Amino acid sequence: MHISKRAQDIQASPIRKLKPYADQAISEGVRVYFINIGQPDIKTPDPVWNAFKKGKEEVLEYGPAQGILDLRKSIAGYFNLYNIPVTHENVIITIGGSEAIHFSFSAVADNGEEIIIPEPFYTNYNGYAAFANVKIAPLTLDVKNGFRLPPKKDIEQTITSKTRAILLCSPNNPTGTVYTAEELERVIDVVKKHDLFLIADEVYKEFVYDGYSHKSILEYEEIKDRAIVVDSISKRFSCCGARIGAVITRNPEVYNGILKFAQARLCPPTLEQKAALEAYRMGVGYFESVRKEYQKRRDILFEGLKDFPGIVMHKPQGAFYIIVRLPIKDSEHFVRWMLTDFRFENETVMVAPAQGFYCTPGKGMDEVRIAYVLKEENLKRAIKVFKAGLKKYRSLF
Amino acid sequence: MHISKRAQDIQASPIRKLKPYADQAISEGVRVYFINIGQPDIKTPDPVWNAFKKGKEEVLEYGPAQGILDLRKSIAGYFNLYNIPVTHENVIITIGGSEAIHFSFSAVADNGEEIIIPEPFYTNYNGYAAFANVKIAPLTLDVKNGFRLPPKKDIEQTITSKTRAILLCSPNNPTGTVYTAEELERVIDVVKKHDLFLIADEVYKEFVYDGYSHKSILEYEEIKDRAIVVDSISKRFSCCGARIGAVITRNPEVYNGILKFAQARLCPPTLEQKAALEAYRMGVGYFESVRKEYQKRRDILFEGLKDFPGIVMHKPQGAFYIIVRLPIKDSEHFVRWMLTDFRFENETVMVAPAQGFYCTPGKGMDEVRIAYVLKEENLKRAIKVFKAGLKKYRSLF
Repeated sequence: MHISKRAQDIQASPIRKLKPYADQAISEGVRVYFINIGQPDIKTPDPVWNAFKKGKEEVLEYGPAQGILDLRKSIAGYFNLYNIPVTHENVIITIGGSEAIHFSFSAVADNGEEIIIPEPFYTNYNGYAAFANVKIAPLTLDVKNGFRLPPKKDIEQTITSKTRAILLCSPNNPTGTVYTAEELERVIDVVKKHDLFLIADEVYKEFVYDGYSHKSILEYEEIKDRAIVVDSISKRFSCCGARIGAVITRNPEVYNGILKFAQARLCPPTLEQKAALEAYRMGVGYFESVRKEYQKRRDILFEGLKDFPGIVMHKPQGAFYIIVRLPIKDSEHFVRWMLTDFRFENETVMVAPAQGFYCTPGKGMDEVRIAYVLKEENLKRAIKVFKAGLKKYRSLF
Repeated sequence: MHISKRAQDIQASPIRKLKPYADQAISEGVRVYFINIGQPDIKTPDPVWNAFKKGKEEVLEYGPAQGILDLRKSIAGYFNLYNIPVTHENVIITIGGSEAIHFSFSAVADNGEEIIIPEPFYTNYNGYAAFANVKIAPLTLDVKNGFRLPPKKDIEQTITSKTRAILLCSPNNPTGTVYTAEELERVIDVVKKHDLFLIADEVYKEFVYDGYSHKSILEYEEIKDRAIVVDSISKRFSCCGARIGAVITRNPEVYNGILKFAQARLCPPTLEQKAALEAYRMGVGYFESVRKEYQKRRDILFEGLKDFPGIVMHKPQGAFYIIVRLPIKDSEHFVRWMLTDFRFENETVMVAPAQGFYCTPGKGMDEVRIAYVLKEENLKRAIKVFKAGLKKYRSLF
């Protein structure tokens, strides 16, 4: 009697691993600024809260496996606003973007098959790849050039006979990079040439700054059958705890496969879907102020860090993360030290060591991810404390 | 470019497959009594509804991967009431019993390994087994002897070198059978002798009739390390749409493996957990009236059907299902015909063909599962319509 290999092999969350040190600091009365995870402090909109209160029903029933019809229509309508021709029949509601990832991986790849993902990447791809017995083939990017995609031939070099898909996340977690149309088209050429699926994690779609806008892979008719979009309301409407996401695809085979996965788990939570529906009903006007707020925070963070000697980073174009190369050797040690040893007027900061965002061993050791998820005042203070900590750390190690 | 084998192979929900015929009947103005699925019409308790309305928070945040602490403590406390010595450190909150099954399967078995399950069994075990690339080895039971477990040597005959666990569901969906202590101990001997895990789906724990009570596998200290309980609030508190379940295990390795799976999908929905907490806070007194109500319904159904010529069934001791052998050849055809062709005073009934509950091909062709999830008056009427349909069907085919 022993547990399965996959239960042994699946990586523990590298971000959550350090959480006990933060909890310990808090229990000692220290204020900890959390800029390590993507939990925004933006208020969840009132229509979402109100949806939970509205219309008490007799029985909190199962809903359809593919999600409630009105929400599927509403999400299709949201994409239509961006001239993306999808209908509710292309939308399956999932339990968070997490399940959308899990379902997409499982629909395109069998055991031991590969999905190419530019690294650094969102840690949870690792978890779901392990859980689904799929291998991630990393395409390593570099902070020095702002994590831009490499030339076509470099992308093609990561393809093997086992490759089934390429996954792009844009706006990117953890880098903040937004791929240009030219970069997307480079990858589209590759998936067409090598007969692959293209999975796009577009959950940060609304968070693109400096007047630019997001381009979805669903806009490309030529890969209509290859495109699978992973989506979520968690960040879009600051509802991380609602666990509502979606898969959008115009490939009927992929759709039906995912629908069968969805049937096995019965349905997503019913009330949360109604709340999500109210969120979409607010219309896209809602995003303007949120976008402005994040852009302001990005600028505060970027300006606040840029003069620190030895730092390498690139101004993020979207999402609310940045990967920063620091003049240190072991960012996990640094992050832990900040929590256990460093205090600045009884305050400290938690950032995320970047190793967890790479699957190539040894990568990201001198990098951290910072999430600009705090209000201006708190973010400014967090940067101040962070820089004081980094300075002290460099003098000690 | 093709979808994965698992997406092709996973079975579409056999229950949901016939749903379009019911929808069509409804659209024609026909009243359809749904006794095909386990969606009870028992009112969701007020404290659950109120939890959704209480204390508006600023941000609907992520919770812990293993679930909120108070709910884990509350569930441990619930088991403690039955003298089962577990703590919150043995409890992981899952997204429905579905995820609890998926996590348990994935924690004990790798690709191609086997879990023995007495059949007929809850259809979704199939879905999760396929999704997790685990094989179900059926142990075929018979309606004629009330689906009791076979002698030890018959159980042992299903064991191969790839067997990793036995799963028992008691009170059973779809049969309504509650295993006796002696039956449980028979299986416990087998898992000890053959070094296997024992997974128990105990979601119907509170629905045991005629004054008997449920015995949990967690009560057996001798398999402390082998026992994994799959649980859910869906039926217990008539909250199917909340999607809150749990895994309870005292094996720390299994716990940690499942915790890592849980971390990959971040967390269960936050508000639903708070609602579940309020449900448990009602105390076990709540179950008394619900149990009485189901026992009454069981009696109505059993008495209503027993005189129909050629029917074979056994009085269920628990849950709210019964498997009935009918004097017909193809229950799927019968169920479809009831929806498309049969009307009794403009009403009809939907039951579930039993084939989907077996994985041995050809089994259950002359059986249906009936769920007694309707109020007395509706259930009586449904039985009347069902018998009229069955009589008519027999005269035609």
